[in-house]
Amino acid sequence: MGTIQQPWEQIVSQKRAIRDKLLAPYLVDIKHRVPRIDNVDHRSRLENEPEVQTITDLDLASLLKRLEAGEFTAHQVIQAYIKRAVVAHQLTNCLTEVLFDEALHQAQKLDAEYSSTGKLKGPLHGIPITLKDQFNVQGVDSTLGYVGRSFQPASEDAVLVQILKDMGAVVIAKTNLCQSIMWAETENPLWGLTTNARNPAFTPGGSTGGEGPLLALHGSILGFGTDIGGSIRIPQSFAGLYGLKPSSSRFPYSGVPVSTSGQEHVPSSIGPMTRDLSSTIYITKTITSSQPWTLDPRCTPLPWNKPIFQKTQSKPLVIGLILNDGIVTPHPPITRTLHDLSTALVAAGHELIPWDTSDHGSCIEIMDAFYTVDGGEDIRRDMAVAGEPYLPHVEALVNRGKPISVYEYWQLNKRKQAAQKAYLDKWNKTRSSDGRREVDVLLAPAMPHTGIPHRAFKWVGYTKIWNFLDYTALTMPVDRVRREFDAVEGEGEEEYVPRNELDEWNWKLWDVDAVDGYPVNVQIIGRKLEEEKVLGAASVIERVWKEYVDGKYGGREE
Amino acid sequence: MGTIQQPWEQIVSQKRAIRDKLLAPYLVDIKHRVPRIDNVDHRSRLENEPEVQTITDLDLASLLKRLEAGEFTAHQVIQAYIKRAVVAHQLTNCLTEVLFDEALHQAQKLDAEYSSTGKLKGPLHGIPITLKDQFNVQGVDSTLGYVGRSFQPASEDAVLVQILKDMGAVVIAKTNLCQSIMWAETENPLWGLTTNARNPAFTPGGSTGGEGPLLALHGSILGFGTDIGGSIRIPQSFAGLYGLKPSSSRFPYSGVPVSTSGQEHVPSSIGPMTRDLSSTIYITKTITSSQPWTLDPRCTPLPWNKPIFQKTQSKPLVIGLILNDGIVTPHPPITRTLHDLSTALVAAGHELIPWDTSDHGSCIEIMDAFYTVDGGEDIRRDMAVAGEPYLPHVEALVNRGKPISVYEYWQLNKRKQAAQKAYLDKWNKTRSSDGRREVDVLLAPAMPHTGIPHRAFKWVGYTKIWNFLDYTALTMPVDRVRREFDAVEGEGEEEYVPRNELDEWNWKLWDVDAVDGYPVNVQIIGRKLEEEKVLGAASVIERVWKEYVDGKYGGREE
Repeated sequence: MGTIQQPWEQIVSQKRAIRDKLLAPYLVDIKHRVPRIDNVDHRSRLENEPEVQTITDLDLASLLKRLEAGEFTAHQVIQAYIKRAVVAHQLTNCLTEVLFDEALHQAQKLDAEYSSTGKLKGPLHGIPITLKDQFNVQGVDSTLGYVGRSFQPASEDAVLVQILKDMGAVVIAKTNLCQSIMWAETENPLWGLTTNARNPAFTPGGSTGGEGPLLALHGSILGFGTDIGGSIRIPQSFAGLYGLKPSSSRFPYSGVPVSTSGQEHVPSSIGPMTRDLSSTIYITKTITSSQPWTLDPRCTPLPWNKPIFQKTQSKPLVIGLILNDGIVTPHPPITRTLHDLSTALVAAGHELIPWDTSDHGSCIEIMDAFYTVDGGEDIRRDMAVAGEPYLPHVEALVNRGKPISVYEYWQLNKRKQAAQKAYLDKWNKTRSSDGRREVDVLLAPAMPHTGIPHRAFKWVGYTKIWNFLDYTALTMPVDRVRREFDAVEGEGEEEYVPRNELDEWNWKLWDVDAVDGYPVNVQIIGRKLEEEKVLGAASVIERVWKEYVDGKYGGREE
Repeated sequence: MGTIQQPWEQIVSQKRAIRDKLLAPYLVDIKHRVPRIDNVDHRSRLENEPEVQTITDLDLASLLKRLEAGEFTAHQVIQAYIKRAVVAHQLTNCLTEVLFDEALHQAQKLDAEYSSTGKLKGPLHGIPITLKDQFNVQGVDSTLGYVGRSFQPASEDAVLVQILKDMGAVVIAKTNLCQSIMWAETENPLWGLTTNARNPAFTPGGSTGGEGPLLALHGSILGFGTDIGGSIRIPQSFAGLYGLKPSSSRFPYSGVPVSTSGQEHVPSSIGPMTRDLSSTIYITKTITSSQPWTLDPRCTPLPWNKPIFQKTQSKPLVIGLILNDGIVTPHPPITRTLHDLSTALVAAGHELIPWDTSDHGSCIEIMDAFYTVDGGEDIRRDMAVAGEPYLPHVEALVNRGKPISVYEYWQLNKRKQAAQKAYLDKWNKTRSSDGRREVDVLLAPAMPHTGIPHRAFKWVGYTKIWNFLDYTALTMPVDRVRREFDAVEGEGEEEYVPRNELDEWNWKLWDVDAVDGYPVNVQIIGRKLEEEKVLGAASVIERVWKEYVDGKYGGREE
């Protein structure tokens, strides 16, 4: 990695100018598209273009049906998504690399193929996808948000991109992420700050924070991110959408550059980000059935296991319930939602049992020690190429600790392996009340808060523990902040005794007036490589909740 | 890890005295048990004890049948193997920890259980097993051959040991290995030198070198070892027996201490060592079907895949043939055996295609760089505890290179990942002659030579390349050195131009008179986690060979 003599600001100007020129034909007037909480996708509606509106509001299954029936061409679909993606970008600054021309060209080829064969090219024919700016796409930069990686187009597609394209998917754009990729918000000097779809003063989460707003505003129907501590699940939780962090070897990572690449201590996972659960299930089934392990040696040879997916949906589940990790207490709407959901699940015949989190602190201590094993050298080298400024949290990260030796690193790995073994033993020991059944999945908060302002993020313990264990974790929307129910507990503020500084910070963030109506997501967690079980359980939980919420709260508004 | 004040020789005396006292009741006169090549198990026969002889000569399946039918008790079986194991030890110095009393006690319990239920406890009821001195067995030392680990009994069984015991298996002893476990022979100052079953002047191979002679001399029927460069396959090749190195996550490693523990760059694999192929298949099926991933978080959740195992046996195979890795040319009997076997396979309808090994050198260069990343610190610390002397090759290893930084270590990992990806791409590109079928398995030498004297080992490139790739590799016996066929090529010695120093060393080792009759093993290799395919292909290959060899050479003598 060399250094670049050109001032970094000049590179940024060049990169942004190229992007903006490609966006220009599609720009709309956004002055009346003010912040809104419910039906956030209405912010990006194109009322004067009913076809665009229809296409971009369809769910994935319906869109595929229309494409198959020839009711829409791939070109129409891609064009529609491009238009709406640009509005989303104008509202949130979510896009980085813009591939509209290539996408439309590819769509035309798909249409020609469909015309001659009468058949879809594959299970994602004509479906627009967006990718965190990490996935290599031939001919396009993968900047990772580093100025110094500009103007170095990838020589070939990442394995996942290759698979998706072979199935007929069309990449329309890449999306913003956080400098260093090791932070739960979305900002870097190259592409700037991305904002929450509902409110520009709020963070969209991160590091895959371009996808959340883009999906929430219907500028995409299927996104892919990476997650080493919550980077898929956090933005999707803020967006009130679905994000799956599979175990690390389930989706192919080959051809996806990442910070601290080459480390194998806590592997980053690739996963899908969608607007509904059925799309997450569809894409997970489709990708795992495509034998990605024949293209990526790090993938596990596990095809989609339909029997497990179905069996999970046809029996009473045993669900371990996490209300609190013992470190940072979640805000009232999250606790209420988990209580409500538990009530609904028990009423539907499932068993909820308390899950012991007393070991989460020590797991996270080991995980945090890994962040500094190279003394920040990897990130520092990337930053040195063009010399752009550090964001404060990235600077803090690279200066947090001195490098340790490879021998000490191995000792840390041994502590990790012992903690993983102890966690699995705990899972085995925890049984249903009759002692006869094991725990199927866990139900837990996704974050300790709902929407929060930019640069307020501090605690990702609810997501990163599952990266440490390499377990499967899905975030899914359940309810929303309800002032009438949640404010009551919030008023007890003067009586609340924080456990520690982090807990105090989180408690001070609680402001029911600021977040009334914001989505409340939860996580469903399974053990390593139990994607089918997690998605099966999520299907059950969503069905149970939908019936319950109509009775208790009179239905969800969205 | 502290240091011990006591002189190391004193600890060695104590450890050996304990062992020898436990062996004493079973010692026999060995003076007429001279070296022999064919029917090597005749060296350890107990002619005056027909029951012992019968039991220890049965194969695993037959032994289980007799146990099930109540024709032998577990106690009889364990007793018989103990007796023969002691003879094997007297001939080769293969045992370290002796568990005879516990084993006989456990056998009695099994017999009591069988008496009351009329059923076997599990699929390994009453089967004696032996373990490389790495596997934790509660109450017993796991010395790894380090003096400083003496008198620190394990607090619990390794996960694999726990599974085996639950199935009714009985651990009778632990077996010798090499100082540092990073060498293909078997010697350490604690337990001394282990010798080849056929010839005390020859090495048994290593590092799991206690198992090979013990199995060859029928002192065990099922052994387990670890393999990070050939440590299962090399001793089994010298012994003319079967050894499977699965991909690293197939068998549970939890509770098995190892040198450079905590490193994840080139994972060590656990695998079975047996006297026949059907036993290797049986144990692999049994262990993978026991859901070891519920007890060991590093295990992949892949139950035994019967359809793949069967399908592999019911179709014409495409086999990539490696005759030479381009670095060290195998001795004539190995090349002849591979030619013969290829002829037999082609005649049986299978397709053999040449396999490109031009990338093996660069893969091994990366792998070798890993050996010194900690500057030898891990081994040095173990050695410092008691202060015993280094074996020359271990001393050379720890002094070979300076430690590198964690950042540099990650860069090396990236090179590894790129090489693994390139190898997989090569596999995909290599097709049958009609271009329609992919390669099922590879057929390759296991070593570049057959039997060799102690301290002559140098090149493990034929085995360790598969550890680097984490592929599945089985060694199996095919033929033996045949002076009448192999000497001819050997006579061309003066014309042979070695490729390099290693090749020259290997060529000089070739001495047909010294090794006439010694076993010639080959390897069958499949991709990552393709144990079922490798074992299926091995079944086919063994059947084809057995038919062929009778025709050409008039049958195998053994």
